[in-house]
Amino acid sequence: MAELVPVEDPADPRLADYRDLRDVELRKHLEAEHGLFLAEGEKVVRRAVEAGHAPRSFLMAPRWLEGLADVLDRTDAPCFVVSEDLAEQVTGFHVHRGALASLERRPLPSLDDVLAGARSVLVLEDVVDHTNVGAIFRSGAALGFDAVLLAPRCADPLYRRAVKVAMGAVFALPWTRLDDWYDALPALSERGFTTVALTLAADAVPVEDAVAGVDRLALVLGSEGHGLSERWQQSADRRAVIPMAAGIDSLNVAAATAVACYVAARRTSSS
Amino acid sequence: MAELVPVEDPADPRLADYRDLRDVELRKHLEAEHGLFLAEGEKVVRRAVEAGHAPRSFLMAPRWLEGLADVLDRTDAPCFVVSEDLAEQVTGFHVHRGALASLERRPLPSLDDVLAGARSVLVLEDVVDHTNVGAIFRSGAALGFDAVLLAPRCADPLYRRAVKVAMGAVFALPWTRLDDWYDALPALSERGFTTVALTLAADAVPVEDAVAGVDRLALVLGSEGHGLSERWQQSADRRAVIPMAAGIDSLNVAAATAVACYVAARRTSSS
Repeated sequence: MAELVPVEDPADPRLADYRDLRDVELRKHLEAEHGLFLAEGEKVVRRAVEAGHAPRSFLMAPRWLEGLADVLDRTDAPCFVVSEDLAEQVTGFHVHRGALASLERRPLPSLDDVLAGARSVLVLEDVVDHTNVGAIFRSGAALGFDAVLLAPRCADPLYRRAVKVAMGAVFALPWTRLDDWYDALPALSERGFTTVALTLAADAVPVEDAVAGVDRLALVLGSEGHGLSERWQQSADRRAVIPMAAGIDSLNVAAATAVACYVAARRTSSS
Repeated sequence: MAELVPVEDPADPRLADYRDLRDVELRKHLEAEHGLFLAEGEKVVRRAVEAGHAPRSFLMAPRWLEGLADVLDRTDAPCFVVSEDLAEQVTGFHVHRGALASLERRPLPSLDDVLAGARSVLVLEDVVDHTNVGAIFRSGAALGFDAVLLAPRCADPLYRRAVKVAMGAVFALPWTRLDDWYDALPALSERGFTTVALTLAADAVPVEDAVAGVDRLALVLGSEGHGLSERWQQSADRRAVIPMAAGIDSLNVAAATAVACYVAARRTSSS
């Protein structure tokens, strides 16, 4: 059972994991160095623990203790009990969802482990916005995708904001990071996946046609700004577009992903 | 042609429209009282002006002047030319897209004007997050919807963050606010629209089936937290759901909207 530890000094070194949560650059370094990530809100904290991430500690105001009692019962990590003012001083913002937890990252699984048994996977090239990464995980999980692969420069799904937006889907969907950017898509084709790149390229076909008859599908998405790299567009098996109204440039990547996942999950498979 | 006015004092009262842009509550009051809204970034500023909104003024660093020269040529509003540091002091954040404009709101059109000729409209109940409102306008415009109606408590589409996320779609799609929350959906049914509420209610049918054969469609969306009110669920002609994987609670409202718009835009119409 978690030990409840009242803390009244905002400078207490035991709160180090929770400092300055709005400072993205500082947090990236701190979390990578210590192999930790933060979960926020009762539901997300519970899902992180249930997914097998070991808690390093919890931090919350007294009124949130009851809702997480079952989670606290099953761990030996300390729970720092603080006033809402102190939580705000330490984290740098008003923690309106109440509970925070600092949890251990785990070694990323191998590509083959993530792909084992998967029929539909998402492949994200350089999606750099944590909100979009979280939204993509959430839509993928809801709409029948089995796994997510990330290019080397894609934003971290375990960053607090991504975890929160994903509502825990970053724990539900297996994911890993691709080491080799250049040959990432051919490597998936070799493993029996048809890679379908979402792009505005002139030779792209409607996504409904591109996924028709595909058995194992890898749906490939590019960055918010300039979309997919030339290399990934060219090395994908197929190029697909979501048909849009005249005069509109594009959909947001998270909206495009939701539509493409919905369409892809309903594809007829030829095999 | 806009007069270029160099400003070096961050307290200059002529910059009042641009103060404290991150203070949501302050901005809501200021913008409502003065009937103004802000556009941010060259593309969005241009679209706001081209959509017919009269500029009150512009504020930008010298390096952004050239990109907006054509817009500045066609207006008499002053353009305050400031250093990037001063822009940051006044607005409260680093204006990385460079150009800002303060523009006049216009009287909202009547419901009948907005609905004239529309085949597919979105109806938002209490969507409170400006990012979601912006994303919904963007997806609606891209995926073939003709207009947007907002319940009395839905967030403002002309709030800076919504305008930015919508990439100008708040200017492209006609929209207005509904005065009467209680009878909003029956009023649409009377005008010949079939109202289809997106909900997780037990009697909801897959959205593809709910929109099949519908001529004039009003797709109805609820708030981020608890979805649609009981009244709106009950007063809608049909209740629809986006089928989801087992164990997943729901999609984000912006993702759900994108999927539903995509499906609805492809419906076969019986008439």
